Amino acid sequence: MAQMEVGVLGATGTVGQQFVRLLEQHPWFKLTWLAGSERSEGKRYADAAPWRLSTPIPTESADKIVQPPVPGQGPKLVFSALDAAVAGELEAAFAAAGHIIVSNARNYRMEADVPLLVPEINAEHLGLVPLQAKRGWKGSIVTNPNCSTVFLAMALAPLRQFNLRQVTVTTLQAVSGAGYPGVPSLDIIGNVVPFIGGEEEKIESETKRILGALHDKSGTSSVVPHGVTISAQTTRVPVIDGHTESISVSIDQGVTLEDVRNALMTFRGKPQEHRLPSAPCHPIVYATEPNRPQPRLDVERGNGMTVTIGRLRPCSVLGYKFIALGHNTVRGAAGAALLNAELMQAEGLL
Amino acid sequence: MAQMEVGVLGATGTVGQQFVRLLEQHPWFKLTWLAGSERSEGKRYADAAPWRLSTPIPTESADKIVQPPVPGQGPKLVFSALDAAVAGELEAAFAAAGHIIVSNARNYRMEADVPLLVPEINAEHLGLVPLQAKRGWKGSIVTNPNCSTVFLAMALAPLRQFNLRQVTVTTLQAVSGAGYPGVPSLDIIGNVVPFIGGEEEKIESETKRILGALHDKSGTSSVVPHGVTISAQTTRVPVIDGHTESISVSIDQGVTLEDVRNALMTFRGKPQEHRLPSAPCHPIVYATEPNRPQPRLDVERGNGMTVTIGRLRPCSVLGYKFIALGHNTVRGAAGAALLNAELMQAEGLL
Amino acid sequence: MAQMEVGVLGATGTVGQQFVRLLEQHPWFKLTWLAGSERSEGKRYADAAPWRLSTPIPTESADKIVQPPVPGQGPKLVFSALDAAVAGELEAAFAAAGHIIVSNARNYRMEADVPLLVPEINAEHLGLVPLQAKRGWKGSIVTNPNCSTVFLAMALAPLRQFNLRQVTVTTLQAVSGAGYPGVPSLDIIGNVVPFIGGEEEKIESETKRILGALHDKSGTSSVVPHGVTISAQTTRVPVIDGHTESISVSIDQGVTLEDVRNALMTFRGKPQEHRLPSAPCHPIVYATEPNRPQPRLDVERGNGMTVTIGRLRPCSVLGYKFIALGHNTVRGAAGAALLNAELMQAEGLL
Amino acid sequence: MAQMEVGVLGATGTVGQQFVRLLEQHPWFKLTWLAGSERSEGKRYADAAPWRLSTPIPTESADKIVQPPVPGQGPKLVFSALDAAVAGELEAAFAAAGHIIVSNARNYRMEADVPLLVPEINAEHLGLVPLQAKRGWKGSIVTNPNCSTVFLAMALAPLRQFNLRQVTVTTLQAVSGAGYPGVPSLDIIGNVVPFIGGEEEKIESETKRILGALHDKSGTSSVVPHGVTISAQTTRVPVIDGHTESISVSIDQGVTLEDVRNALMTFRGKPQEHRLPSAPCHPIVYATEPNRPQPRLDVERGNGMTVTIGRLRPCSVLGYKFIALGHNTVRGAAGAALLNAELMQAEGLL
Repeated sequence: MAQMEVGVLGATGTVGQQFVRLLEQHPWFKLTWLAGSERSEGKRYADAAPWRLSTPIPTESADKIVQPPVPGQGPKLVFSALDAAVAGELEAAFAAAGHIIVSNARNYRMEADVPLLVPEINAEHLGLVPLQAKRGWKGSIVTNPNCSTVFLAMALAPLRQFNLRQVTVTTLQAVSGAGYPGVPSLDIIGNVVPFIGGEEEKIESETKRILGALHDKSGTSSVVPHGVTISAQTTRVPVIDGHTESISVSIDQGVTLEDVRNALMTFRGKPQEHRLPSAPCHPIVYATEPNRPQPRLDVERGNGMTVTIGRLRPCSVLGYKFIALGHNTVRGAAGAALLNAELMQAEGLL
Repeated sequence: MAQMEVGVLGATGTVGQQFVRLLEQHPWFKLTWLAGSERSEGKRYADAAPWRLSTPIPTESADKIVQPPVPGQGPKLVFSALDAAVAGELEAAFAAAGHIIVSNARNYRMEADVPLLVPEINAEHLGLVPLQAKRGWKGSIVTNPNCSTVFLAMALAPLRQFNLRQVTVTTLQAVSGAGYPGVPSLDIIGNVVPFIGGEEEKIESETKRILGALHDKSGTSSVVPHGVTISAQTTRVPVIDGHTESISVSIDQGVTLEDVRNALMTFRGKPQEHRLPSAPCHPIVYATEPNRPQPRLDVERGNGMTVTIGRLRPCSVLGYKFIALGHNTVRGAAGAALLNAELMQAEGLL
Repeated sequence: MAQMEVGVLGATGTVGQQFVRLLEQHPWFKLTWLAGSERSEGKRYADAAPWRLSTPIPTESADKIVQPPVPGQGPKLVFSALDAAVAGELEAAFAAAGHIIVSNARNYRMEADVPLLVPEINAEHLGLVPLQAKRGWKGSIVTNPNCSTVFLAMALAPLRQFNLRQVTVTTLQAVSGAGYPGVPSLDIIGNVVPFIGGEEEKIESETKRILGALHDKSGTSSVVPHGVTISAQTTRVPVIDGHTESISVSIDQGVTLEDVRNALMTFRGKPQEHRLPSAPCHPIVYATEPNRPQPRLDVERGNGMTVTIGRLRPCSVLGYKFIALGHNTVRGAAGAALLNAELMQAEGLL
Repeated sequence: MAQMEVGVLGATGTVGQQFVRLLEQHPWFKLTWLAGSERSEGKRYADAAPWRLSTPIPTESADKIVQPPVPGQGPKLVFSALDAAVAGELEAAFAAAGHIIVSNARNYRMEADVPLLVPEINAEHLGLVPLQAKRGWKGSIVTNPNCSTVFLAMALAPLRQFNLRQVTVTTLQAVSGAGYPGVPSLDIIGNVVPFIGGEEEKIESETKRILGALHDKSGTSSVVPHGVTISAQTTRVPVIDGHTESISVSIDQGVTLEDVRNALMTFRGKPQEHRLPSAPCHPIVYATEPNRPQPRLDVERGNGMTVTIGRLRPCSVLGYKFIALGHNTVRGAAGAALLNAELMQAEGLL
C-alpha cells in the first residue's frame, strides 16, 4: 500500500510536535507538509519549534521549511493542532478548499454536522460527515475531544449498558495540557491550582455528545447526547504528562463490581477490530495494584494510547468509584486525531 | 496568669516538631518536657530531632534533653504526637497515671468515651471525658481527627442546618502528612499516587462522629454519629504542606448559593467566643478569586489554622460543589491538638 | 520620627510585590504611591497585581489605585522594580525630575557615577552620587546588584583580606528570579536548565565592581573594580525561592579553614552598625550541619536578608570551597533596595 | 550464536530492576536467574520488586521465583546490584565459587586487582583480572564506577591528550541515584540538598583510577592513577533521572575551543569498535543549543547510554568549562555493567 501524504497545521506547538513525533515512521501516512504561523513561516522546522519532547526531533521533519497555512496548498489530509483563536476560520477555509481536516481544536466539536470522535466509542458518528456538504465545503472536518474528556468518556462507555445516570469527576491534570509556555512554574511547583478555564464545561458537554447515539430522522443524521448527568471539578498538578481522574458513577443496582470490571477490561471497538496502527490491543487496562494508576508509571502504556483504570470499589453515595489515567498529549490530543484518521482510512473515507 | 507547664510525647517526629514550634512563646502553656523513643532518649533535642520546618528550631527546646516516656513523669498536660503503633498502650498508661493526654494519634478517636474534637464544631463532646473514670484512669484522653478529616468536617459543619445528606470528596494531600521519611521522592516528584492507606475509611467514619450530637440517656453521655453519607477518594500530590479537597454536597433544595456561602463565612464556634490564643478570627475564609484556594498561597492563612474555601457553585449531581484547603500539620495535627487544650483550659477542664 | 513617604515603580510584578510586602508596617517609610504600566493604571492594586506571595496582600495597598509613572508625581523617594526594557529611560526621567530612585533594575548598575550597593560591603560607594549632578539630574539613582551576585559578593567580601584571587561558582537558581510568568513549568518540573541569559556576565562584572574600592583622584570619585577573576556557570532548578551557589576560592596559602570561617561569621557592616530596620544581626550565618544550607530550610533566615553558608572545606584545586544560599527576591532584589534606602536615610542622604 | 545465561544479584532494588529491563530481549544474554534477599526469596519477582520504572515489568521475569543468593547456584555470569553493606562478602564468595561477577557495587572498585571499567576509556584494565587468581578465586569480579563518576570520566577522557591538570565539578544529581525509598520527598520537593554522603570522595578517587594507565612491571599489572587534581561539590535536586555536572578544566594553553569540542565529539572506544549491543554510536553527543543538556530532554539519548555535553566555552579561571549530563541508573549503573559484560564477551573473556 502506498503511503498517503499528510500535513500538520500549527505544527510548532506542543500538540503539533506530538503529531510530528507520532507520524515519524507511520505505516500509512507520510508527513510532507508542516504549516505554522507567520512567525515560523520560512524557517527550518527545528528552528521554529521549541522542541519539548524527550525523544529527539525526527531528522526528516527537522529540516523541512515551515509553510504558510494556505488552503489548497498541502496534502488532502491535514491534521490540525491550531489554537482555538485561529482554528475557527482557518479550518473552515481548508475544509471548503477540499481538505479533510482531522482536528484537535475545540471550535467545531459541538457543531451538529461535525463528528466528535473517540473511535472505540462512537465510530458511527462519522455518519455526520456528509452533512457538511450543505456548508458548501468540498472537504470536511472531524474532531477529537478535549484531553480530560477522552479518558472520562472511555471509562464511561462500557458502563452505558448498566444504565449510567450520574457521574462526578475530579481531575488532576498535567501541565503539558496547557501548551507552551502554558502554566508558569511559579504557579505550580509544589502547588495545586483548582481551576482550568472552560475545562469543566467541556468535560460535561463533550462527554455526553460522545456517548450519544447517531439518529437518522427523515434522512438527516444527528447525534442525541447521552442522558447522563456529569459534574466535574478540574485541577492542575505539577505533573508533566498524564491526567488522573477520580470518578464516581451511578448505575443500576444489582450490577456487581465484577460486572463493572469485566465491562472495562473487555471493552473493544473499531480500532481493535480494524487493527489500526495506533490502536492499543486493550483500550482500557485495569491495574490490580492498590496504588495505581500513576502518571509516572502508567502513562506510556500502549504507547500513550491506553487508558489505565484502577481502584474500582463501591461508592457509598453514587454506586461505584475508581481512578482513571491517560496520556493527555497522546490519547488526549495528537494520538486521538491520528486514530481518527486511521479509522477514516480503514473505513474508506479518505 | 501563670503559665501552665506542658510536655510532648513523640517530640522528635514531624508532628512533634510542630508542637515544639507552636508552643514557643505560647501565652498560656510553657513547654518543659520533651519525651522521645529509646533512640532519642538522653540526647539534646536538636540532635535527636531531624528538624524539617522552615522556621529555626526554638533555642530553648533545642538544648533540652529528650526524656524517656515514663507515665507519672512530666507535667499533667501532655500533648501526644506518638505513632499509632505505640500510642495505644502509652497514652492509656499516661492517662491512668493522671495525665491529661491531648493526642493527635488515631488510636482512641473512635472510642465511645473519648472526645474526637474540632473545637469550632463539637466542643460539647468534652462531656464524654468523665466517662473515662470508669476505665480506672485518674487522667484522660482527648483527640483530634485525621488531617484531611478536619478540613472536610469544618466545611460540612455549617451545612448541617441545611439537612446535609450526601458528600463526595477527592483529596489532593501533601507529603508532610505522611511524616518523615514518609513518601519516597521517587514516588511523587512529577507524579500523583491515588492511594493513602486507611485514609478514606478515617475520613468517612471520623467526620460523621465529629458532626454528631452528644446525647444524654439515663445519665450516660454518648455521641450519635451524623447521618450523612460520605464517599472519599484520597490521593497524594507533590506538595509540601496543604491538603486540597474537591467536595460535592447534597443538601435541601431551595437553599441558595448565597445561603451556603454565608453559612460558611459566618461560621464561628467556642474558640472564637473564648478568643483562644490559637483560634483564627474566621475559622473559614471564603476566597473570591476564581482559582483559589491554593496550597502555596493560602495554607498559612490564620497561622495555618484557617480553612480556606473557594469555587462554590452548583453541582449538577449532588447540589453544590467547592474546593477546601487546610494546613495538614497545623490545623490538621499539632495546631488542632493545641486548640483542644486551649478549649479545655478556657472551660476550666485542666 | 515622622515616616517618609515612598513610592514603587513597577509595583505589580513579582519584585514590586515584594516591595509592597516589605514596606507594610515599615518603621521609617510609608508606602503611598504605586505606579504601573498602562495596562494596570487606574485599577485597584489588588486587581492589577497577580499576587504570587504566600503572605496575604497588605490591605492598605490592595485598595490603592495604580498610578501612571509620571516623573514629578509621587514621593521624592521611589523604589524601582521596573523591567530593564523600560527602566533606562524612565528612571533617568525620574532622577532628572528630582526623585531619588533606589532601583533593582540592571540598567545603571555599571555606570561610572552610579553606586552598585551592598550596604554591608561598599557603603562608601554612595560617594559617587554627587557626580550624577553632572548629568543635570536634580535627583539620583542608586542600584543593587543582580540576585545571584549579592550572595556571591557577600561570601567573598570577608575574604578580600586574604588576597582573594580566583573564584569559580555554579549557581542553582530558583524560578522566582525570572519573574512572572517567567519560567514555563514544562521546562523545569523534574528538570534542570543549565543556562540563564546574561546571568553569568552580570555575576562576573557586578561582583568585581561591588568588591572594588572608591578612589578619589583630583576631586573625582570612581570605583576601581576588585582584581579577582570570577568564572560562573548558572543553572535553573525547580525551587520557588532561594539561590544556592557552589563556590571555590583561591586565597593566600597559610590561611586556615578556621580563619575563613571566622571571617565569614564575624562579617559586619554599616547596616549592623546603624541597626537598620531591615538589617539582619548577622549578614552571614554559618550552618554547621553537614547538609546545609538548603532553600526550604534556610531561605527565610533573617526575614530573607541573611546569607547562609555551609560545608566550608579545602578545595584541592583552588583552596577552599563552600555552599552559599540567599533569598533571591528579598536579599537579592526588593530587600536589597530597601536596605540601600535605609542606609541612605541613616547617613542623612534622603 | 547461542545466548549466554546470566543472573542478577540484588534483583529487586532500583538498579536490579534496570538490569531486568535492559536484559529483556538482549541479543547475547538470557536472564534466567534472579536472586534477592531473604525477604524476597521464594516470591514471584513481580511481587517481591516494587517496580519503579515507567516501562512495564518484563513478563518473563515477572513470573520468575526469586532465588536465594547461594554461590555456585545460578549461571556463570552474574550481574551484581547488591548494596555495599552485603556486596563485600557475597561477591567474593561468588567469585571464589567460579562466577564472573560484573558488579555495580562500590566495594571492590579501588582494589588493586579489580578493573574499574568504563569500556570506552580503559578497556585494557581488564588485564588486571588474571591477578585475582592469587586470591584463590576460580571466578572474578569486574566493576563499574559510581554514577556521577562515569559522566565526568567520559568528559575528561578525550582531554587527557591536552595535558589535563585540574578539574572542578559541581553535580546536580537525580533522586533515583539514591535507590528506593532513598531521598524522602519532604527533603527534596522544591529544594536542593548540597550534600551526598561519600560521593565527592568517590568522584575524585575513582575518576583518577579510570583515567589511569595499566602498567606492567616484572609481569605484574597495576593501574597508575592519572595525575589530574579533581575537586567536587555534589548536590541533590528534584529530578527523577539524570545527573547534570558543571565542569571546569585546566589543559594546555593554545588548545582551542574547536580542538576541545572535536575531541569530545569524535571520542570513540572499544564498544564502538566491537559494535557492542548496548554501545551508543557516539558515546558523547555535543548539544549545540545554548540551554542544553537538560535531564528531561537529553537523558534518554542513546537509550540512556550517551553522555550529552553542551555550553563549552572559556573559563577565566581554569581554561574551559561546560555542562555534562548522563542517565544515572543506565550509563551510570546497570547499563554500565552490561556494557562491561558485553566487552568481556567480545574480547573472549567470558
